[in-house]
Amino acid sequence: MSDTHPVLELIHTRLSTERFEPGPTLSEDEIRELIEDAIQAPSSFNIQHWRFVALRNPEEKKRLRAAAYGQALVEDAAVTFIVLGDVRGHEKLAGILQSSVDAAVISRRKADRWVEMSDKIYADGQLARDEAIRSATLAAMTLMLAASARGLSSAPLIGFDPERLQKEFAIPEHCLPVMLVCVGRAAEGNPARKVRMGADRVLAFDRGRVF
Amino acid sequence: MSDTHPVLELIHTRLSTERFEPGPTLSEDEIRELIEDAIQAPSSFNIQHWRFVALRNPEEKKRLRAAAYGQALVEDAAVTFIVLGDVRGHEKLAGILQSSVDAAVISRRKADRWVEMSDKIYADGQLARDEAIRSATLAAMTLMLAASARGLSSAPLIGFDPERLQKEFAIPEHCLPVMLVCVGRAAEGNPARKVRMGADRVLAFDRGRVF
Repeated sequence: MSDTHPVLELIHTRLSTERFEPGPTLSEDEIRELIEDAIQAPSSFNIQHWRFVALRNPEEKKRLRAAAYGQALVEDAAVTFIVLGDVRGHEKLAGILQSSVDAAVISRRKADRWVEMSDKIYADGQLARDEAIRSATLAAMTLMLAASARGLSSAPLIGFDPERLQKEFAIPEHCLPVMLVCVGRAAEGNPARKVRMGADRVLAFDRGRVF
Repeated sequence: MSDTHPVLELIHTRLSTERFEPGPTLSEDEIRELIEDAIQAPSSFNIQHWRFVALRNPEEKKRLRAAAYGQALVEDAAVTFIVLGDVRGHEKLAGILQSSVDAAVISRRKADRWVEMSDKIYADGQLARDEAIRSATLAAMTLMLAASARGLSSAPLIGFDPERLQKEFAIPEHCLPVMLVCVGRAAEGNPARKVRMGADRVLAFDRGRVF
């Protein structure tokens, strides 16, 4: 195994930016490219629960900032994404898998079985909600690494009032706000990365214990 | 922005492997390296809710397979990680932030404020649980991309019986099984990537709607 792959370097140097340089914007095409990267993440049965609202209009970012306890980075970032998870995502699975059936990546029979299984599994509301969080988060992590690869800085945020956000941006109840992701140019003087616990603090082998 | 960064290539070609070549193993050091990569993910207040149990012993993987509805990849992968989220992770925050205070990455005052805020926020059990899922998932995505960078294949799995898994591996109640991640060598003949919905199906700008 090699330690020198650019992905590893990027993973080890990515910084959750605290302060963005206000001013620079991203075009709709640049934002669309970031999302094309993000949606390459995996998801249960390929349900793709992720939904994104990209705020780049200054007025919209200001409204979001108010729902995010006034945090400046929400407004200063070139774009701030509201990353949502559709808790009813599985209801769309048959339609979603059709393009994989058409591309002969999955058989009709297997696709039908997946739809049946996911309907059964996600009838449990807690599981459906958990899965929406998981899928949206897998896409959010991919989005942040893609942003780094494209020379941009990013920050994930969970400090917002979900009810206010949902109301303010007319987000329907089945789309759960999972996190905000700010993307833009880092300002000078951002603090360094927080120190991580080492692997040995969080990793057990086989019957080892780490709890 | 450049489209040609190796990270973007890797994001767009990563495949959730369905079949692994049984046999090859990874050393404890190689596994530890993968986890060192994974734990570079961000987490709320740097709480690092993620915990990993790495199963590489054939008997342990067999037991896990039984708790994962008999899915062969759990056993065939060189290592299968049980990725957990510590719903009580925030209780350890003061100790965790001490190394960042020591490294002068965060002030004592700010660290104290973070501890106070996170105690308050995560007194809400639902939020604490959601956060454990989010952190563990951010690390899991980073782990899968790191595995690709290291020339390995991976697969995320949510098809397991959480109660059985928790009991079988003596995982305490506060550590929530969030997902399994299999890592190893892909066997020949894995199916191609499932087709994604395009960005325009999941992305809205400002006041646009995508729900």
